[in-house]
Amino acid sequence: MKIIVDAMGGDNAPLEIIKGSLLAKKEYNVDIILVGKESVINSVSRENNLDISDVEIINAEQVIETDEEANTVLKKKPDSSMAVAFRMLAQNEGDAFVSAGNSGSLCVGGTLITKRIKGIKRPGFAPLLPHFAGGCFMLIDAGANLETRPELLLQYAVMGSAYMKNVMKIENPRVGLANVGTEEHKGMELQHKAYELLKEADINFIGNVEGRELPYGKCDVVVCDGFTGNLILKTYEGTAKAIADKVKNLFSKNLKSKLAAALVMSDLKKMIKEFDYNEYGGAPIMGTLKPVFKAHGSSKAKTIKNAIKLTKEFVEADVIKEISQAVK
Amino acid sequence: MKIIVDAMGGDNAPLEIIKGSLLAKKEYNVDIILVGKESVINSVSRENNLDISDVEIINAEQVIETDEEANTVLKKKPDSSMAVAFRMLAQNEGDAFVSAGNSGSLCVGGTLITKRIKGIKRPGFAPLLPHFAGGCFMLIDAGANLETRPELLLQYAVMGSAYMKNVMKIENPRVGLANVGTEEHKGMELQHKAYELLKEADINFIGNVEGRELPYGKCDVVVCDGFTGNLILKTYEGTAKAIADKVKNLFSKNLKSKLAAALVMSDLKKMIKEFDYNEYGGAPIMGTLKPVFKAHGSSKAKTIKNAIKLTKEFVEADVIKEISQAVK
Repeated sequence: MKIIVDAMGGDNAPLEIIKGSLLAKKEYNVDIILVGKESVINSVSRENNLDISDVEIINAEQVIETDEEANTVLKKKPDSSMAVAFRMLAQNEGDAFVSAGNSGSLCVGGTLITKRIKGIKRPGFAPLLPHFAGGCFMLIDAGANLETRPELLLQYAVMGSAYMKNVMKIENPRVGLANVGTEEHKGMELQHKAYELLKEADINFIGNVEGRELPYGKCDVVVCDGFTGNLILKTYEGTAKAIADKVKNLFSKNLKSKLAAALVMSDLKKMIKEFDYNEYGGAPIMGTLKPVFKAHGSSKAKTIKNAIKLTKEFVEADVIKEISQAVK
Repeated sequence: MKIIVDAMGGDNAPLEIIKGSLLAKKEYNVDIILVGKESVINSVSRENNLDISDVEIINAEQVIETDEEANTVLKKKPDSSMAVAFRMLAQNEGDAFVSAGNSGSLCVGGTLITKRIKGIKRPGFAPLLPHFAGGCFMLIDAGANLETRPELLLQYAVMGSAYMKNVMKIENPRVGLANVGTEEHKGMELQHKAYELLKEADINFIGNVEGRELPYGKCDVVVCDGFTGNLILKTYEGTAKAIADKVKNLFSKNLKSKLAAALVMSDLKKMIKEFDYNEYGGAPIMGTLKPVFKAHGSSKAKTIKNAIKLTKEFVEADVIKEISQAVK
């Protein structure tokens, strides 16, 4: 299996991306194609004693920055690592693509360069978020399409179920509709119509879910419009991070607190790990014709390695074939 | 000052409501009018040795449950504690109203029985949320109106600023527009148009804010549509609660962890308190002609007491007059 990796995407590119790719190559037996500035990849590898002799490198002179507009990947920067990677993916020069770069560009490039699965109207950006029941859930859509329609929410539910079942190995994934209350009549026209569609669909729809139920693992797939989803995602991550930072500070304040930390260290580590999004590595873009996976922007080597592992499983589980059949 | 209190609203009514009202009466020198089932209020007070001889009680035979539809307060239950209280408020039989009951009914009753401030198109449900910079911010609207318009977001910003300045004593409150990115072009038509209005308004508008910035106290007032706001609110509270529960469990697991807890107890308590919404007591309904305050549904006596304190300050600061002048 050949996995194309964007060497230039994310806050810690290219060093951590190269490191993570090498770890994944060794551990999961996949071939890696690094796309990016060849001279930079080579010099960074040399400086850090990383042996990349077994890794294919495809040169791409441009880089899309995190704050650039999503469609930069199309006409403005056709020689960016991302645009080059998407064209390679479209031409079957790799089985999947992983990037820690600009999420918007990943959605646009996946949709318009690699193309959508036949029948899928709009791909969804679908982060995997940890919850406190000890696992993760998929939030779809978290920002690929800010405005949406009931049919799109249904497609998100079908795609999310296929992913959680086949890649995350959750039997009969529970799908919830993000809403302001659990009763069927809650929400606006979008939610009312989506509820009707979801109820009739061949998925395990459990009804409306509220924001407060998400951290408790109430369901495995949460569907919503991209605007709301983006705010849920970032509020969730931001709150968890703010509290984790506070807990860490509390324990490193003085000798007494460090002693306390030593006493509960293993449980503390476990707790922080349980709520660490790096464990899940990021967000698949659901609905593209080939697997595209967005690793967290702040990814270090371990997260990139995990992202490549999930992407490998995304390819092997043939989720895209299952989605194609479901939307036929 | 006379504050009308819904004796029947919330998970711990009427006992904790009565207790909190008595505490507030004593501490803040306000007159309390308890509205609810007189026989129940009397018997619960007697059983718990609470002296309510100084408190006025107005009988109301019906109770609106938390899961009932918002408009129950109008025709379906005209003799509910909430409907009776709103009519009293409209007839100037009290200066403000506090309830831990059904939020939807509070918004509907406030809007249609007590009426709106002249010029205000739609009241907003405006919870006060703690943040980690050591204070709180107002989220408006968190569910009174799921669909909204740019002019309503502007009015929310004006009302939120007036409240945070006069009641929470924040000089020149910073107003942010909830959005999927900080750049001006982010969001949908609603956000684009609202951005233009907010930029021109006589408030301290700091631009778009993302979900991840909220727990860090990036701004004092966050404006958004009620659908998104409700999901932000509950995701924020749910995540904080889930993590606080985990931390508490971690420290009560065994002797070793209890020893650790003892070592960091004061900091730990401070941290948990910092993120405890009970400290702020709830959410004013902004835009009604008289102050209406929603205390958290799970309020105990202390939270009710705090809610009454904030409501007293809401009356004294004459926020409603300031809003009236601003929207003239």
